[in-house]
Amino acid sequence: MIDGDTKLSEDKDGHKGEQTDCKTHIEMTLQPVGFIKNAVEEPFLVAGDNDLEMRGQIDNTMEHVRKIRQAVSEIVIDESLADILDGIEEYSHLVVIYWAHKVPGQSRTLTRVHPMGRKDIPLAGVFSTCSPARPNPVLMTVVRLCGRKENVLEIQGIDAVDGSPVIDIKPYVKNSYPQNEVRIPEWMEQLQNEVGEGKS
Amino acid sequence: MIDGDTKLSEDKDGHKGEQTDCKTHIEMTLQPVGFIKNAVEEPFLVAGDNDLEMRGQIDNTMEHVRKIRQAVSEIVIDESLADILDGIEEYSHLVVIYWAHKVPGQSRTLTRVHPMGRKDIPLAGVFSTCSPARPNPVLMTVVRLCGRKENVLEIQGIDAVDGSPVIDIKPYVKNSYPQNEVRIPEWMEQLQNEVGEGKS
Repeated sequence: MIDGDTKLSEDKDGHKGEQTDCKTHIEMTLQPVGFIKNAVEEPFLVAGDNDLEMRGQIDNTMEHVRKIRQAVSEIVIDESLADILDGIEEYSHLVVIYWAHKVPGQSRTLTRVHPMGRKDIPLAGVFSTCSPARPNPVLMTVVRLCGRKENVLEIQGIDAVDGSPVIDIKPYVKNSYPQNEVRIPEWMEQLQNEVGEGKS
Repeated sequence: MIDGDTKLSEDKDGHKGEQTDCKTHIEMTLQPVGFIKNAVEEPFLVAGDNDLEMRGQIDNTMEHVRKIRQAVSEIVIDESLADILDGIEEYSHLVVIYWAHKVPGQSRTLTRVHPMGRKDIPLAGVFSTCSPARPNPVLMTVVRLCGRKENVLEIQGIDAVDGSPVIDIKPYVKNSYPQNEVRIPEWMEQLQNEVGEGKS
């Protein structure tokens, strides 16, 4: 099933990579390695042409985030990949990278959004936010691994829609994540406080 | 520059997403949002058709990992995206997602590898490792943000080769990463110990 490849061509002067105007032509094609299976039919944040919108009210947002932390999903890995999961049960947590397939293509051009669709928070650059609408709608969450049955992983804590294509799974190694002197903007701190304690 | 899109078609029975044999056809095309600029010309781990190989000896590996933690790179974001970085200086750390463009296409079919090319560690499924050769060679690192000059970010701690296409940048919010009861395999613990203290 995997037939993608990377093609990188140089410009006339033989420069690679350092251009800011993307003269370098690179083809990057992803192949789904599996899919997420759960009961969530529609994304909670709706990405339009101009901004993000919430489904529902602010109170519901925070309730939603809390629910997500508990919700269980399955990741069904393509059977042809079989032994790619060997040894994964030895981790308590995994990094899941997936594709936001319900985000409309045109919202990939958004560069600034109201975080979580909240009009009470100033516009921020998309790379300063967790917006699902991004130039490349590649989303990432650290989840708890609850169990594995052959090619199916049971996981807890992902805010993904049923049928989301999975791009990659990586081990979560806490030591590779900064623990000290981590600074975030005030608005992000506020959002974190509204949702309550972090994930465990 | 962003013209990619997602196309998802259903099979004859109208099923979506829950197939394990990838009947569902999805096209996922990435567009580089910028490039990494540094002095690293070749990847440290070489991905072949059968496994990973190190350049050099084991002692060098650990020395290499320690050096990487200090090394400074630049991320040059496409000028057309301009305000997508608005507010990013308020974070001390960022998640950088990039494409391993020097990993040969055929090594995307590898399903088991010796972690870090170390033959003294048993083979593990690719998803249990940080191998750069993966079905989708999408790599991810949390880096320290040292500074920003317009569309150029100065970052510390990425093990990427010069010219690597950048796929996405996300804020690092420590609260979203599990802190307690995190379990990793013994061999990963051993690798971590050999490299010394975690990143800060």
